[in-house]
Amino acid sequence: MSTVLDTALAELAAGLPDGALVTDPDVLAAHRSDRAPFCPSGRPAALVRARSTDDVSLVLRTAHAHRIPVVPQAARTGLAGGANAIEGCILLSVERMDRILEIDTVDQVAVVEAGVVNAVFSRAVAERGLFYPPDPSSWEESTLGGNAATNAGGLCCVKYGVTADFVRGLTVVLADGSVLRTGRRTAKGVAGYDLTHLFVGSEGTLGVITEVTLALRPAAQAPLTAVAFFPTPAAACAVVSDYMADGTRPSLLELMDRPTMDVVSAYRDLGFPPDAGAVLITQSDRGEQAAADLKRFADIAAVHDGDAIVSEDPAEAEMLLAARRLVAVATESLGAYLADDVCVPRRMLAELVDRVQDVARAHGVRITCVAHAGDGNLHPHVLFDPADPDQVERAHRAFGAVMDLGLELGGTITGEHGVGVLKRDWLTKELGPVGVRVHRDIKHTLDPRGILNPGKVLAAAGTTADAVAGDVGTA
Amino acid sequence: MSTVLDTALAELAAGLPDGALVTDPDVLAAHRSDRAPFCPSGRPAALVRARSTDDVSLVLRTAHAHRIPVVPQAARTGLAGGANAIEGCILLSVERMDRILEIDTVDQVAVVEAGVVNAVFSRAVAERGLFYPPDPSSWEESTLGGNAATNAGGLCCVKYGVTADFVRGLTVVLADGSVLRTGRRTAKGVAGYDLTHLFVGSEGTLGVITEVTLALRPAAQAPLTAVAFFPTPAAACAVVSDYMADGTRPSLLELMDRPTMDVVSAYRDLGFPPDAGAVLITQSDRGEQAAADLKRFADIAAVHDGDAIVSEDPAEAEMLLAARRLVAVATESLGAYLADDVCVPRRMLAELVDRVQDVARAHGVRITCVAHAGDGNLHPHVLFDPADPDQVERAHRAFGAVMDLGLELGGTITGEHGVGVLKRDWLTKELGPVGVRVHRDIKHTLDPRGILNPGKVLAAAGTTADAVAGDVGTA
Repeated sequence: MSTVLDTALAELAAGLPDGALVTDPDVLAAHRSDRAPFCPSGRPAALVRARSTDDVSLVLRTAHAHRIPVVPQAARTGLAGGANAIEGCILLSVERMDRILEIDTVDQVAVVEAGVVNAVFSRAVAERGLFYPPDPSSWEESTLGGNAATNAGGLCCVKYGVTADFVRGLTVVLADGSVLRTGRRTAKGVAGYDLTHLFVGSEGTLGVITEVTLALRPAAQAPLTAVAFFPTPAAACAVVSDYMADGTRPSLLELMDRPTMDVVSAYRDLGFPPDAGAVLITQSDRGEQAAADLKRFADIAAVHDGDAIVSEDPAEAEMLLAARRLVAVATESLGAYLADDVCVPRRMLAELVDRVQDVARAHGVRITCVAHAGDGNLHPHVLFDPADPDQVERAHRAFGAVMDLGLELGGTITGEHGVGVLKRDWLTKELGPVGVRVHRDIKHTLDPRGILNPGKVLAAAGTTADAVAGDVGTA
Repeated sequence: MSTVLDTALAELAAGLPDGALVTDPDVLAAHRSDRAPFCPSGRPAALVRARSTDDVSLVLRTAHAHRIPVVPQAARTGLAGGANAIEGCILLSVERMDRILEIDTVDQVAVVEAGVVNAVFSRAVAERGLFYPPDPSSWEESTLGGNAATNAGGLCCVKYGVTADFVRGLTVVLADGSVLRTGRRTAKGVAGYDLTHLFVGSEGTLGVITEVTLALRPAAQAPLTAVAFFPTPAAACAVVSDYMADGTRPSLLELMDRPTMDVVSAYRDLGFPPDAGAVLITQSDRGEQAAADLKRFADIAAVHDGDAIVSEDPAEAEMLLAARRLVAVATESLGAYLADDVCVPRRMLAELVDRVQDVARAHGVRITCVAHAGDGNLHPHVLFDPADPDQVERAHRAFGAVMDLGLELGGTITGEHGVGVLKRDWLTKELGPVGVRVHRDIKHTLDPRGILNPGKVLAAAGTTADAVAGDVGTA
């Protein structure tokens, strides 16, 4: 078997540009994992830093011929282990395919290579008076190809939608190395099956995205911001429902529960009222109507015992948002955490927030809740001490119990983070047997040898990964 | 072979509710075709009027076992022959699955059976203060299942998007009769592959949609309307680009060229200026900002020699829109026509409109152009006398030449009508060989016996349809 891998790597070395193929153990070790804590990862056999669709095609053609698993990667900011190495794989990075190929201001559309960083792109289109809304927390580092492969969300989804809503077309390299162009450049189009959105969110298991055609919007107006504190999460969630049922669409509507406020306060004192059980932060970017929107928000908040502060000063607004932005770093500072990502119908959000604390009590762990509340997308963070095996075990059980709860409330196990390896077992529950069968059939059709990110999203049907597991030491 | 069909029909008669299975030749003849002119249709062997997902499942299980082709139907308002019978098929109508199962005003989501008529649903949600935007011209007759199966568009797409943008989940009966539930009820979700949008727009070739979960919006405000006349289509198209590049989003932006105005004028004199080469009709439904939007439209129109009339009176606005609404009936009154549906990048719209007239001259036919201009979606109507075989032949060639032109300009052959049988050959051009292969692979995976609407979208790979063609006379 090691001969197979050696042969494949020799073919890649011969065909790829200088420096693209990396087998240095330290570099490989540094590329084993994304940001999902406590997710298994194997030892990669090699890393390829592709510079072109041709490079990607060569890697896949070679891997297909020799049945070697390939794990697509870019910034590795994912939170579900989707980019984690598997034993003996080739890591195929598109991070250096970082050219913005075109920004068309008339048609408000852009074409980019997969490795362009979201923030770089967002700023480039902003300079031309345009707006690319999807803003996952990782936007300063994550790439547009990775955003498409995971269908990333963010704070602005509540008004503007997720990455999928902006992807019009793709260049995808298929498992056998052939190059597929999907979708269109136009505003509308129904020619054939929607392959574009089959690949979006498929987490590298069906093909490797190398170029993305993205819809843009005219620049939004600077938002106005309001913050409101509530005695209970239930009161805050009632405001979310009432406000969203209204005609206006907030451009941001975030919720933090008391445990989250406590975590943030421990990191930096922002003066949260000590008796507040939850806080909502909202923005409206509707220009002249924004002030009226926030007045309406404040009125609805008052009905539910909420005390709203509307800020017309951008600097002050930034400060209000800072609390939300500090959640990740403040939580990380406490040790380790597992981030759930359940999304439920908005009417179920209050029950979800309450019952997450039942889960916390039942498993003896601390769980904080932050939510893209307007979308019903809750991120319960299960905190634990990674040095304590018992806590780790209880945290994992609580993490799973939250997904079961999301399903029970008519929701989904993942609103925006994806499945990766972390939520594979729950995906099976959510899809049901017919859904799993169709997933497996489509996977097998597009990747008959099971080389594309095997074991991610769904457990691998074959044993491709295992078959090469013994090779790594000799590569 | 006739025994096979007889056996299958006997099984259906035994398993379906009374009256669901129809073999009356007159009824069958009345259900052979949708509204695509000059599209081939075969003689169906039977019609099943399903009342439930179980009925649909029984039909497909039976058809799958006996390898009998099935053509899904509902209102048969399609314009591409997608619902046309093929020889010896079972027509499977979901038209009587017409229950609105749920309208949730808090989460702004609804669940409907596939046979609910768009207009019935749109009015039902409007009564609850909600808004279902997709408005294909056929909306008074066409069903939500058909709208989903073809990913129907309409006038409001320019602001609100197409049917696919509102479909969150589906119940789909697969070729073997198993029942698949796709998608979600929540605002966001990335659990597994996006099967929902694989079925949306697949024109009944991958499965039969029986239930649809639809996103709704808060009620829109009553629109203001403006009309502007221009010396040339190019001037009107320049306004489209400039106005769309602006921050505002019109809720309607339609273009008619001079030949369309002439057709409408011949049908009813609406007092079009005799020297106008094109007209734009636009609406804004942004409440207090609508007047400012239309002022901006009028200003941009003036730059391009356009004379805009803004109407604040809803009755007058209706009259302005009536011209657009009359296009279909006025065109039909002239004889027969083939409706193209190309969609191009907006910057190419002016060139497209001009060069469509080159096509008209080259083929000696009359072509009128009406466009969902804000989307770059043009409907050139190729007029002809169906009694004149030479004209019919020239009209078909012109119809195809327009699609070639759309592809040449970076567009798609179909923005919203679908492929059916009418555009099958051009779809192959648009998809390219890798795209066609992936389409065929996915079709084969989901429908290994090729019983689902064979020959639609793509030419049938096998000969299933032919194999039963001889049976019909004996059924």
